Amino acid sequence: MKVLTDKDINKAHQRIRSQILKTPLISNESINKLTNARVFFKLENLQYTGSFKLRGASNVISQLTKHEKSKGVVAYSSGNHAQAVAYASNLRKINSKIIMPKDAPLIKINNTRKFGAEIIFFDRSNESREEIAKEIAMIEKRTIIKPYDDIQTIAGQGTAGKEITEDLKKINIKPDIFLCCCGGGGLIAGTSVYLKKNFPDVKIYSVEPENFNDTQLSLLKNRIIENKINAKSICDALLAPKPGKITFSINRKLLTGGLSVSEAQVKNTIIQLAEKLKIVVEPGGAVAAAALLNKKLEFEDKNIVVLISGGNIDYSFFSNIIKKK
Amino acid sequence: MKVLTDKDINKAHQRIRSQILKTPLISNESINKLTNARVFFKLENLQYTGSFKLRGASNVISQLTKHEKSKGVVAYSSGNHAQAVAYASNLRKINSKIIMPKDAPLIKINNTRKFGAEIIFFDRSNESREEIAKEIAMIEKRTIIKPYDDIQTIAGQGTAGKEITEDLKKINIKPDIFLCCCGGGGLIAGTSVYLKKNFPDVKIYSVEPENFNDTQLSLLKNRIIENKINAKSICDALLAPKPGKITFSINRKLLTGGLSVSEAQVKNTIIQLAEKLKIVVEPGGAVAAAALLNKKLEFEDKNIVVLISGGNIDYSFFSNIIKKK
Repeated sequence: MKVLTDKDINKAHQRIRSQILKTPLISNESINKLTNARVFFKLENLQYTGSFKLRGASNVISQLTKHEKSKGVVAYSSGNHAQAVAYASNLRKINSKIIMPKDAPLIKINNTRKFGAEIIFFDRSNESREEIAKEIAMIEKRTIIKPYDDIQTIAGQGTAGKEITEDLKKINIKPDIFLCCCGGGGLIAGTSVYLKKNFPDVKIYSVEPENFNDTQLSLLKNRIIENKINAKSICDALLAPKPGKITFSINRKLLTGGLSVSEAQVKNTIIQLAEKLKIVVEPGGAVAAAALLNKKLEFEDKNIVVLISGGNIDYSFFSNIIKKK
Repeated sequence: MKVLTDKDINKAHQRIRSQILKTPLISNESINKLTNARVFFKLENLQYTGSFKLRGASNVISQLTKHEKSKGVVAYSSGNHAQAVAYASNLRKINSKIIMPKDAPLIKINNTRKFGAEIIFFDRSNESREEIAKEIAMIEKRTIIKPYDDIQTIAGQGTAGKEITEDLKKINIKPDIFLCCCGGGGLIAGTSVYLKKNFPDVKIYSVEPENFNDTQLSLLKNRIIENKINAKSICDALLAPKPGKITFSINRKLLTGGLSVSEAQVKNTIIQLAEKLKIVVEPGGAVAAAALLNKKLEFEDKNIVVLISGGNIDYSFFSNIIKKK
């Protein structure tokens, strides 16, 4: 298996930099006081399409051959990868079909359609999105754009780690801890490759919803463990059934451990991020911050990087959460 | 009257840079497509204390003499200047008293108190906050920290313009239009001094709620015009009764004109900023974006800077607005 290096991420960055937003890395005095730490939030919710997924999708799609482009692409996603593939395809006039769960957030469905993709819905409980995608790919000769278990997708997501590294170096900060959400593990794998190369002492933790803590368990057992079938979570972006083969091969080497947070902690974190940071974050995008605010580790006096991965939340849901405050 | 120059703003920046957040200047593809323009949002809602006001307050308070510091400060504010003065005073262990209207947003009252200030409430309809402040200042020998009509307050707010300038130069962009909210006029005056110095061709417009368009009218008549007594607006941060003498002396020279937006346009903009930019913005902080989204000028194909001034909105109100979508 090819090993992903920071050089691959630098190349990915060259490829996609003009198509993505260099998202800000910001600190917040209220959060610093609350945690007695120096916290830096990487705001991928501000990324075009509202999540980091545009990085990976752009990196893969920009490398398709002319022939592949003419045949179109297909992807499966609960919504953030869907929007990213639709957007990146649309930019290059490539036809895209996306397999999405029926219960995906409306904002994600609407945006995916708005970016010009054709959506095919599936039932999370009894259909395999991978199988549907494979069938469409075979019949229509489309290229599958994988959501995480692809070296170039991971390299694309890793560009967020490159930006974090460069921003931290500018202010002479060495991170002690990096907290990052984990669904299939592409974002944390890519960013970790870059961060570990530049800050070998940084401790990296995946953060997952407690019912979807497959990476946490897999790290403990040192082999891939699946989530329980029919487990549920409001973190719709983090419902991958198990760690990817490629992502886990990276994460098992680079991660110090895995953390998990409850649904109530995620909701409360969404409120605090709106109130203190003035940002809109979706449930899956808030888990890393939830681990921080609920003191899942000893954070005092440390330099902590928290990845906010996305902001695509249905407004009725967001409104209900913050209203209950 | 001393003329404010970019050099004063550079000095202010030296003084306060370690105490403020260098806020991001971001673009957003959805907004660019919607407007057919290149739009750059300066996110002062992410500033510590949730608004740009920390810049001016820090600049003034950091220049107090030891004696003045020992006697404490007093300020009047609907809330954002209140929080800023409380926070900047607290940082230097200076006692602060703040005169706030009874109907200020709860989040602003709570934060001001949390930052350690003593709050004195007044009734907007029949009391003068300036008079109350003057009396307290006289009796207790406190220094009044003015919300806008002070050259050093304006220089502090101008540091946002310095950051915008530096970020635009990095990406080789010359702004065609700068849209900025206007209450007393301190923010737009300070930022305009810096922007006009660096980009002489930029056209600058104040944006106000339609019932509080005193600067728009004053620019038209070329003299200070007051707002109607008992006018109302949801933009609690922009309810100054009339332009300041100093701010208007700057703004009449540098501004191309004034724009105004309706309450409904402000509410709709708050929704769009949450949905597309993933940020939480208060009503007063959204007026400049409202002018853009409601095409108050010809924006197509232009480079536009929009100042988002603050994010301190009560969550029940925010929740109601986005729920009505």
